[in-house]
Amino acid sequence: MTELGVVRRAITRADRASVDALAPLGVATVHEAMGRVGLMKPYMRPIFAGAQVSGTAVTVLLHPGDNWMMHVVAEQIQPGDIVVAAITADCEDGYFGDLLASSFKARGARALVIDAGVRDVKTLTEMGFPVWSKCVSAKGTVKATLGSVNVSVVCAGAAVNPGDAIVADDDGVVVVPAEWAGKTAEAAKAREANEGDKRAKLAAGVLGHDMYKMR
Amino acid sequence: MTELGVVRRAITRADRASVDALAPLGVATVHEAMGRVGLMKPYMRPIFAGAQVSGTAVTVLLHPGDNWMMHVVAEQIQPGDIVVAAITADCEDGYFGDLLASSFKARGARALVIDAGVRDVKTLTEMGFPVWSKCVSAKGTVKATLGSVNVSVVCAGAAVNPGDAIVADDDGVVVVPAEWAGKTAEAAKAREANEGDKRAKLAAGVLGHDMYKMR
Amino acid sequence: MTELGVVRRAITRADRASVDALAPLGVATVHEAMGRVGLMKPYMRPIFAGAQVSGTAVTVLLHPGDNWMMHVVAEQIQPGDIVVAAITADCEDGYFGDLLASSFKARGARALVIDAGVRDVKTLTEMGFPVWSKCVSAKGTVKATLGSVNVSVVCAGAAVNPGDAIVADDDGVVVVPAEWAGKTAEAAKAREANEGDKRAKLAAGVLGHDMYKMR
Amino acid sequence: MTELGVVRRAITRADRASVDALAPLGVATVHEAMGRVGLMKPYMRPIFAGAQVSGTAVTVLLHPGDNWMMHVVAEQIQPGDIVVAAITADCEDGYFGDLLASSFKARGARALVIDAGVRDVKTLTEMGFPVWSKCVSAKGTVKATLGSVNVSVVCAGAAVNPGDAIVADDDGVVVVPAEWAGKTAEAAKAREANEGDKRAKLAAGVLGHDMYKMR
Amino acid sequence: MTELGVVRRAITRADRASVDALAPLGVATVHEAMGRVGLMKPYMRPIFAGAQVSGTAVTVLLHPGDNWMMHVVAEQIQPGDIVVAAITADCEDGYFGDLLASSFKARGARALVIDAGVRDVKTLTEMGFPVWSKCVSAKGTVKATLGSVNVSVVCAGAAVNPGDAIVADDDGVVVVPAEWAGKTAEAAKAREANEGDKRAKLAAGVLGHDMYKMR
Amino acid sequence: MTELGVVRRAITRADRASVDALAPLGVATVHEAMGRVGLMKPYMRPIFAGAQVSGTAVTVLLHPGDNWMMHVVAEQIQPGDIVVAAITADCEDGYFGDLLASSFKARGARALVIDAGVRDVKTLTEMGFPVWSKCVSAKGTVKATLGSVNVSVVCAGAAVNPGDAIVADDDGVVVVPAEWAGKTAEAAKAREANEGDKRAKLAAGVLGHDMYKMR
Repeated sequence: MTELGVVRRAITRADRASVDALAPLGVATVHEAMGRVGLMKPYMRPIFAGAQVSGTAVTVLLHPGDNWMMHVVAEQIQPGDIVVAAITADCEDGYFGDLLASSFKARGARALVIDAGVRDVKTLTEMGFPVWSKCVSAKGTVKATLGSVNVSVVCAGAAVNPGDAIVADDDGVVVVPAEWAGKTAEAAKAREANEGDKRAKLAAGVLGHDMYKMR
Repeated sequence: MTELGVVRRAITRADRASVDALAPLGVATVHEAMGRVGLMKPYMRPIFAGAQVSGTAVTVLLHPGDNWMMHVVAEQIQPGDIVVAAITADCEDGYFGDLLASSFKARGARALVIDAGVRDVKTLTEMGFPVWSKCVSAKGTVKATLGSVNVSVVCAGAAVNPGDAIVADDDGVVVVPAEWAGKTAEAAKAREANEGDKRAKLAAGVLGHDMYKMR
Repeated sequence: MTELGVVRRAITRADRASVDALAPLGVATVHEAMGRVGLMKPYMRPIFAGAQVSGTAVTVLLHPGDNWMMHVVAEQIQPGDIVVAAITADCEDGYFGDLLASSFKARGARALVIDAGVRDVKTLTEMGFPVWSKCVSAKGTVKATLGSVNVSVVCAGAAVNPGDAIVADDDGVVVVPAEWAGKTAEAAKAREANEGDKRAKLAAGVLGHDMYKMR
Repeated sequence: MTELGVVRRAITRADRASVDALAPLGVATVHEAMGRVGLMKPYMRPIFAGAQVSGTAVTVLLHPGDNWMMHVVAEQIQPGDIVVAAITADCEDGYFGDLLASSFKARGARALVIDAGVRDVKTLTEMGFPVWSKCVSAKGTVKATLGSVNVSVVCAGAAVNPGDAIVADDDGVVVVPAEWAGKTAEAAKAREANEGDKRAKLAAGVLGHDMYKMR
Repeated sequence: MTELGVVRRAITRADRASVDALAPLGVATVHEAMGRVGLMKPYMRPIFAGAQVSGTAVTVLLHPGDNWMMHVVAEQIQPGDIVVAAITADCEDGYFGDLLASSFKARGARALVIDAGVRDVKTLTEMGFPVWSKCVSAKGTVKATLGSVNVSVVCAGAAVNPGDAIVADDDGVVVVPAEWAGKTAEAAKAREANEGDKRAKLAAGVLGHDMYKMR
Repeated sequence: MTELGVVRRAITRADRASVDALAPLGVATVHEAMGRVGLMKPYMRPIFAGAQVSGTAVTVLLHPGDNWMMHVVAEQIQPGDIVVAAITADCEDGYFGDLLASSFKARGARALVIDAGVRDVKTLTEMGFPVWSKCVSAKGTVKATLGSVNVSVVCAGAAVNPGDAIVADDDGVVVVPAEWAGKTAEAAKAREANEGDKRAKLAAGVLGHDMYKMR
């Protein structure tokens, strides 16, 4: 349930080994393996190309123009987590910059996924801290109003529960429910194993139309 | 969980009396009473002005450009329900028109809330069947790919579970979790009772600044 | 071909009787009867509700912020025409107001469809001159740069040739190629004749799922 | 200058008679008379059709999701004013509803122009209090962070200084600098006087192409 | 004509030498040489910077969320072609990834231009297969509904006929009608030859105002 | 005041030393030091990453689709200036390319900030001439209608007066009123000096929550 004014400390994270197996498989393959659900909207883009990560979600729900809870969520980060930040209404302000990135990184966060803006992108890129966001904006935020930490949120059109597995790369961001992480990793690996053969046939000039028996 | 290919027949609907108490209170008051969560994005607009309804959600998850499941969800409608339709990706096609409205109305549906387009809006207006949608579009859809009925969905940025209470009027659409319906109705009534006095003071020229002791 | 600086005077209009038969059938039915092609994008909306028209297209291609050719196209209007205005790049300026509407009406135009803005909407509504447009804007335009009249254009995502049939109502705007007007009118009438029976069944509670044998 | 944390009490309002002369001339004519500058962007739309007003601007600069200063600006309203509300970053929250409208009306405000959302639109319509806004949204706001009153602002792309004349109708909103109000009213009247004759000619079938000697 | 359910095998391609001459001239110069028409909307962006190509169009018209016809069009590709993909309604799904790219490349395609999303962009970049698209999205598509191959389409606001010349670079995408390819290449070369001298003068501090005799 | 048809030659530029001190501080820090005002909207993006500049504004107001005044403003450029280009209505045309860049560079301009499109981005990147724009577009413009040079403009939501300081980097663009340049540079330096210590603490694992005493 989405609620304001709540900080949950005890959450159940998806199985670490399963989560870690998802990053190399990539967003498109994981999304297919899950049955084509769980994707965030395509406006979520990486601030630099090439990052490919998976981790467990700690969630934060923020007020428009107010990043107070970004400081609160920092305390709940454990190594291997990805912070997923949602806003109670559409907002493009710059909630996150190099100071918060230093803090999140020190706590063990692997990335930030935020349905709003970020700033200091040159420094974040130099730090190698990956962020997927709606936009880049230098617009500063206040610290005045309470939100929540580790509640269920909707981020960029996808429902995220604390502890879910998050996979992000140049194709976008996908959410894997915690209890699906293991079977999704298996299904994605099977799918990938099958693709090498297909790719070789197609590269040799076989038509997909024939290969998939679509005629 | 959002899944494709599932039709749930047994869902638990929010308490009818509580749900019915929400419509006259209106979306803005209910949203405030809930603690300012649960609103759909403001791009969701009524196809005609003046409708004000509440009901229990039956949900449907559709494929872009494909309204097959609109026919499947019809069978799950009970009197007092509002159909909440989500799409697996952004789409503006016209999924719903006068024929489906005749069917939904016959089944007892009070309204449709759809994160996509609708058509035949002149006839829907004459029928008095209220719809909140992203847009109006005559674009027809196919009936080729399975979606789901009565699974958890994200509609216009709000998480909706089957059985939740939905309130919609000229200000938009708000989702009240089924288990919150009773207390939300109470809180909203208390809030409304308090507003008449405030309105009289403000209309007499008292400043909100003084009335709310904000100086 | 889309070209600038061309005014074509001799165009072949779709058969008048076929064109006139399309208005009462409505945009959604005509679009279905054509095989679901030819629709303009759903951002094209009427400036007042309730108008339902069909006519033959005279086209005009304008420069951003420049309505010179609106005065040139006026001379090419014949009774029963609908002016279809495209811009060489996205623009929201107010290209058309009550003076041009007086002129177009005097020439026999039935409506304007414009992929840009219009102004004087209160007066246009009082005059009963229907317009489908991208937006309303008071922004004035200059008369400095030549465009074209009666060339092929793309308007709101749809290709329009001079003489094509245009149908517009509260659901949007559809383009019927001139040579398809007759068969489309026939197909749309057949479709409509079939809908009354379906509507009655659905209103009586028969499920579309059963009626369409989708199980 | 745009500054935060400032409330200016002494502002110089445009000449009342000149301001009052602008409303009946309408936005499109006033905008043309000014030389085609000063228009707000066309996304600013009235919440109900038909209102046509002019007044002197009192300005308010608000934080995203925070309507504290709406209560502060109320105290600065004098009869004949129009409140112009800008936000420091894009925001669609519902900053204004029936309670604030009661207060603004009691203070003598003629309208609200806000680059954000409003709610209680059904009640505002019944009250006949005109609002031009970016959208309708029930999303509630907090009262936590100071903005400013009667500073220069940018609202919907137009620069507004306190005391400027504002004209708004179904075509949108135009800003007339205070010192231009008199000459703009004169120029707009002259323009309008000239239009009746043109309209009659065009309605009689004379082509604009000939009337404007554009050949 | 835009039609569904049609696959045209025999199309007339623009003259190869003329088409090949267009790539080095670039989109801006070709667009100017054509008289400033034929450009796709600026939301069409390359998935990686630096590619500059020209080729002959094979077109495909797809249903929202359905990439069946991408496999069908593969069979119609000849060396030197560029696939131009249009959708019957706005859609951001990921219709194309590394498998299809392997196939298109094997068939001799030089690029893909698609008014929708693509995925596997890291692999596509490594393969050096250039794509211009509306967005990047991992959202998978079904293979359920027939579209068309080699019919006239509207792609990102531009009309494209099979066989037309397509030019694409970091500035966007322009369509040159097949019968204009030769004269456009000539005009663009003449234009380019003229620019070196202008550039030298401007770099030396001569004002364009003087050089173009605009005073 | 925003006016058309005006070219101001005598403007007062912000103090050069203060302006030059702003670039290394960056947009986010300068914006904070000013009290979080003056930012352009986040849709303004650099055409290549890594540029970080400050300079004094010379402004130009252009008509949609018409770049005449870009040639006029060139004459007003002095070394150390940044050209700020606004359009009287939303427009995405490509107003600026390599020829104008050669001219601006020769005149001593450090950058262009334009609320519209630019083209020849590959060449601009090779030249190292930085541009912040709304989009990239090859769409050519005419030279037909007068605008203004060195008047007050609104560019991407920010008010800009000629002579103001402009700072731009990968985070966006901020406007510092000319008379604020000195104190803003001082405040920004003080802010930056304070950040090194904070960053070290956060990188060592101290929580912002504790560091800022937010509990």
